[in-house]
Amino acid sequence: MTEIPDDHPRAESLRTRHRIEDGVELGITSKQGLIAQGRGEAYDYLLGEETIPSADAAERAAAARLLLADHPVLSVNGNVAALVPGEMVELAEAVDADLEVNLFNRTAERMEAIADHLRDHGAEDVKGLAADARIPGLDHERAKVDEDGIRSADVVVVPLEDGDRAEALAEMGKTEIVVDLNPMSRSAQTAAIPVIDNIVRAVPNMTKHARELRERGASREELEAIVAEFDREEALEAAEKAIRRGELD
Amino acid sequence: MTEIPDDHPRAESLRTRHRIEDGVELGITSKQGLIAQGRGEAYDYLLGEETIPSADAAERAAAARLLLADHPVLSVNGNVAALVPGEMVELAEAVDADLEVNLFNRTAERMEAIADHLRDHGAEDVKGLAADARIPGLDHERAKVDEDGIRSADVVVVPLEDGDRAEALAEMGKTEIVVDLNPMSRSAQTAAIPVIDNIVRAVPNMTKHARELRERGASREELEAIVAEFDREEALEAAEKAIRRGELD
Repeated sequence: MTEIPDDHPRAESLRTRHRIEDGVELGITSKQGLIAQGRGEAYDYLLGEETIPSADAAERAAAARLLLADHPVLSVNGNVAALVPGEMVELAEAVDADLEVNLFNRTAERMEAIADHLRDHGAEDVKGLAADARIPGLDHERAKVDEDGIRSADVVVVPLEDGDRAEALAEMGKTEIVVDLNPMSRSAQTAAIPVIDNIVRAVPNMTKHARELRERGASREELEAIVAEFDREEALEAAEKAIRRGELD
Repeated sequence: MTEIPDDHPRAESLRTRHRIEDGVELGITSKQGLIAQGRGEAYDYLLGEETIPSADAAERAAAARLLLADHPVLSVNGNVAALVPGEMVELAEAVDADLEVNLFNRTAERMEAIADHLRDHGAEDVKGLAADARIPGLDHERAKVDEDGIRSADVVVVPLEDGDRAEALAEMGKTEIVVDLNPMSRSAQTAAIPVIDNIVRAVPNMTKHARELRERGASREELEAIVAEFDREEALEAAEKAIRRGELD
């Protein structure tokens, strides 16, 4: 990885970009993944490259919802694996969730490369390779999931997810936590908890909130109240306002 | 190329994306190029995926400025070649400009692949391969230009250009016409005529304006008036407003 000086004004953004480019070398990031990264960069730039208060509230609500879940699963695609492999493993540990690899352009090679990458970052059990169940309403390859993973999950975290799959998962009755920088995207619009933030900030912040809630033994009632207080419409609107109004205000 | 039905709501955007992906197969689009394409998609989406009036005015001023030039050169990088190869050849013909390949990540293979791609789309003379001159103030590989091309040009069109090179060219005294979807980018901010529009719309529209001005024999005075009337600050502000305010209005 190229060294970037810490005092470079866009150091964080450039480091993120290099992680994605390295992902190509590792065989885990696709061409579509690179384009998606670019879209994310633009939205993040307009957002001010920071976690806005409504996003922090969404991340706290997501942490609470994950702690309340019977069977939470964190879905991992190529960009997620390239950008935050260790951070996803930590979040899975903090909320007792499974990690499942799910690709929009599924090939056996990429599935294996991503599972290996997660294991290199401390994952013990990586789901997604069994592919013994299907999401109704999606094309063959895109529908594949694990029976004891996403198929039987009650809460799924789907970062940087394609709109079709986000909608199909919602139709299955899953409670979806979406991480996406575009508040107008179908994935964000579909989510029970849309997290409009850069995944490199969102995932560690969800973990921080989960640990804090867990360590002080927050009750189910408290966790439920945190989830109930979160207003998804308000959060989506706040994010769009931040992107649209940004520097003009 | 994948077939996309004409009635698909995002047909144009998807077709553009496929041109870029095909560019990877042809060896002309880089990883950075794919990420840049994604950034452009996001800005274009926010802009409404249309040529706003201030962009049309910029494209008309650019056409007039090119017709007034002694030695105009159109700079072509990987994304430009992938997205609008034939359209760049047509613009070059309409304003009697040279085409010069210039890459941020220059390799002999990519230079050749891009020159071939332009020739496949009707280009007769493609500059950039001689590399017998330098742009002062840039790293070795990024500084390379042709002595009888960009080095001696008075007006250069630099679409989707890196900020460092845009600034270095401006410091050489070139009149720069930049095509870029981000009005806040250094390239756009540096340009004498910033065209804030998608290159797939901007280049054909510049050609249309150039042909129209030429066919009716517009005088130098008229062309100069068109250039003088164009207000770059106003155009940059209008584009940022369109991106920021867009759907909220």
